[in-house]
Amino acid sequence: MNGAQAVARTLADCGVTTCFANPGTSEMHFVAALDTVPQLRGVLCLFEGVATGAADGYGRMTGRPAATLLHLGPGLANGLANLHNARRARTPLLAIVGDHAHYHKRFDAPLESDIDALAGSVSGWVRRCARSADAGSDTAEAVAAALRPPGQIATLILPADVTWTDGATPAVPIAARSPSPVPDEATSAAAAALRSGEPAVILLGGTGLRRTALDAASGVAQATGARLLAETFPARHERGAGIPPVDRLAYLVEMAASQLAGTRHLILAGATAPVSFFAYPDKPSTPLPAGCQVHVLAEPGDDVPGALAALADLVGAGDAQRTQPSAPPLRPEVPDGELTAQTAASVIGALLPDNAIVCDEANTSGIWLPAATAGAPPHDWLSLTGGAIGQGLPLATGAAIACPNRPVLALESDGSAMYTASALWTHAREQLDITTVIFSNRAYAILTMELERTGAPTTGTTARGLLDLSRPDIDFTALAAGMGVPASRSATAPEFAAQLRRALAEPGPHLIEVALPPRG
Amino acid sequence: MNGAQAVARTLADCGVTTCFANPGTSEMHFVAALDTVPQLRGVLCLFEGVATGAADGYGRMTGRPAATLLHLGPGLANGLANLHNARRARTPLLAIVGDHAHYHKRFDAPLESDIDALAGSVSGWVRRCARSADAGSDTAEAVAAALRPPGQIATLILPADVTWTDGATPAVPIAARSPSPVPDEATSAAAAALRSGEPAVILLGGTGLRRTALDAASGVAQATGARLLAETFPARHERGAGIPPVDRLAYLVEMAASQLAGTRHLILAGATAPVSFFAYPDKPSTPLPAGCQVHVLAEPGDDVPGALAALADLVGAGDAQRTQPSAPPLRPEVPDGELTAQTAASVIGALLPDNAIVCDEANTSGIWLPAATAGAPPHDWLSLTGGAIGQGLPLATGAAIACPNRPVLALESDGSAMYTASALWTHAREQLDITTVIFSNRAYAILTMELERTGAPTTGTTARGLLDLSRPDIDFTALAAGMGVPASRSATAPEFAAQLRRALAEPGPHLIEVALPPRG
Repeated sequence: MNGAQAVARTLADCGVTTCFANPGTSEMHFVAALDTVPQLRGVLCLFEGVATGAADGYGRMTGRPAATLLHLGPGLANGLANLHNARRARTPLLAIVGDHAHYHKRFDAPLESDIDALAGSVSGWVRRCARSADAGSDTAEAVAAALRPPGQIATLILPADVTWTDGATPAVPIAARSPSPVPDEATSAAAAALRSGEPAVILLGGTGLRRTALDAASGVAQATGARLLAETFPARHERGAGIPPVDRLAYLVEMAASQLAGTRHLILAGATAPVSFFAYPDKPSTPLPAGCQVHVLAEPGDDVPGALAALADLVGAGDAQRTQPSAPPLRPEVPDGELTAQTAASVIGALLPDNAIVCDEANTSGIWLPAATAGAPPHDWLSLTGGAIGQGLPLATGAAIACPNRPVLALESDGSAMYTASALWTHAREQLDITTVIFSNRAYAILTMELERTGAPTTGTTARGLLDLSRPDIDFTALAAGMGVPASRSATAPEFAAQLRRALAEPGPHLIEVALPPRG
Repeated sequence: MNGAQAVARTLADCGVTTCFANPGTSEMHFVAALDTVPQLRGVLCLFEGVATGAADGYGRMTGRPAATLLHLGPGLANGLANLHNARRARTPLLAIVGDHAHYHKRFDAPLESDIDALAGSVSGWVRRCARSADAGSDTAEAVAAALRPPGQIATLILPADVTWTDGATPAVPIAARSPSPVPDEATSAAAAALRSGEPAVILLGGTGLRRTALDAASGVAQATGARLLAETFPARHERGAGIPPVDRLAYLVEMAASQLAGTRHLILAGATAPVSFFAYPDKPSTPLPAGCQVHVLAEPGDDVPGALAALADLVGAGDAQRTQPSAPPLRPEVPDGELTAQTAASVIGALLPDNAIVCDEANTSGIWLPAATAGAPPHDWLSLTGGAIGQGLPLATGAAIACPNRPVLALESDGSAMYTASALWTHAREQLDITTVIFSNRAYAILTMELERTGAPTTGTTARGLLDLSRPDIDFTALAAGMGVPASRSATAPEFAAQLRRALAEPGPHLIEVALPPRG
């Protein structure tokens, strides 16, 4: 078999069964090889940023890597922004990047570029496959690298001649490393801090935001009086009725500082120490109060649920755990009247289906969503982890392919949606059960706010024009229809509720444009 | 003034009057500064790849850099593919990339990434501005670097604190370096080769494809019997009735080899030695025949027109130049009947307006275009220089802003259009006189061909599905309307002609979807 066939066969043997692809000439042998391995599903994306964002969503929901197939340096470049988000999400992901045949590189053909430099900027593991005979073993190592806890991007660069040369063999899977157990000293130190009687916060992140970890953390909080907070942009947060509720640390550093005011001990459980998303003149880079001691209970790659369970035992949370608070099954009513970010959130809270996956890139329009959905049936909430916009629609693509029996809700802002709107075409082609809600306020509203926060003068028309998405207004229902996704526009809250009910009830993709007041 | 104001002021003083922008929080002071410098026009693009492609189009048409304003590493990443094309086009271009405040970088905030690695992959010059006091002088140096012949990408990384700190001053422009004169030895060597009587080809590229250079080259060809060829993907080729016609070297290496068969001397005038776009099993990496001697008359950064004029003098082309052949003003008739790639090309050849700028990303659908437009009124033809698709609509954006009094025709294939379709929104907002023609064959047709050429098996449905753009069909008229661009669909050649006539006659943007036979 040729190198491409060995890669495909090894992928399937290692449990990598989905490849989000946007191939070019140098990947044609790999594309052909897909037909020799029926376990490996190829999903066409019309832009590489869709492929990488989809692999991120897939990896977050399954804990296993999907592969992406990208065309040389420019294809990888187009996928980098969502790889950046995947890196921040610590998602296991296997980026396969085709390259010129090795003997062709010295000719500096038009598509030649520095793939290694680009790959290095987002990957925890990069290898250029040197020869067909290595294709299988390199692939197995790449999968193992992607799975290294907590998960990372592994990039395998596949020269075209490696893919077409015979003499390759598939490799056997490499056993995945488990998350590291947390040493007793770390648990003891955290327990001592919690027993000090001084104000303490446990900051949860990564696998610390899955249900069993949340149960244990909640027991610790009950037993010790510590408060729980979630990292600001979790990769995946299990929440809803019956699950211990945990507020997220705020995006704005002043608000985060207020949440942490008075805290003497910050205990990190799968999260990193909080920082301001951006720097601003005369504002601090971190919301941590002076004198707050930071304790690392568990790194993101550690066994965070295990560490929290051990901590619960140490602090005698056994009884508390049985009476721990969980979010009550309270949902907002469907409101009457105008559509605003707040009433739209109430509609979503009222109608969010059981076991939903929410891909949240609502940005400023999303501030009412956490409260409105706190008592909805249990669901997973996936955030924009790395701040690179254009993630939501691709992420939903991958989540829906990972979990075909769960409803997926993509909550998108208009500015971000325009980055990777062609994901809608893949929603249609694969008939994915995704309901996309576009919060259309016709502005980069977050920048209107940020412009003021940075202290820059805000009176000029040029500056305002660069933050404004009107002139012309974008008709997202036309864009969706153009790509095969049935779409509607809501002007009032009851209209939105009726359209959302229908979209959720019908299989396949839908899009609803929620027309918000300008910059609302 | 603060650093951002010094940058903006210096840009305008250096003749950089257009900034294609997709800003974020770290660029807010620069955005605000635009209002202090009315000579500097900010053009909002809804995706960074549109901004960089537009700056490429602008730079190709004016010979001066436009600036792009990009948001941190992910914003630069999104712009990289079209920066790759600009690098291959040798376009002067100034990429301004905002970054976190320098003191914030150590906190590894979510958007932190290796900007320098990404910038280095496409730029001839990269600098990170260290302090506000340097902002003006760094900007002047960046503009001078972008203009260094033949033109290159200069990337200036602007930390947020540099932009908001006072104490900056604008810098005076640095005189641009001129293209290097070609030494007499190079001209003499070329002349000797041409006088040898052995078959010779002059391969023209860069500024060798502008009218004065073409006139001189044509004289040389007349006087010596040498043949002229143009590089395969010229950044800008002046052509049409009254201009010496020059065929382009073919994309497929076998066809290029056939064009060069028997050639004993290849004289490079602003072009580099030809290579195969891709490697294929058992095909050569270069189309050059064995024993062909390559002579460099002029490098791309040299004074190519001057070198050709000197060569013309040396070979006694004075008389020949007066009788040199030029393309006759012959245009095809508007054909009747079905729309195919060939009849669509005839329609375009029949109707191409005087002084048009053609941005060509028609790919496989474009093979009939060169012949069909050879006798059209004089026009500029801009090609996909680096093979990174998604260039056409952004390139047209920049060309139209650079040359507001010239009609711009964007010839796009459907697969490529989907990469950067949001450029249409900027066409609408700026009311640019761009007519976009989408050649819709509902396939990555070039890959269907390449799949066969690589010798990969082609029978599988998975492979075919990854090259197919149907299921669902994309309705480009809906996409265009959703972004404010009036659009129509043509099913026959006369329909296309009527719609193209109307679109060219009306100011502002239009889109015509040309429905081709599947994979036609």
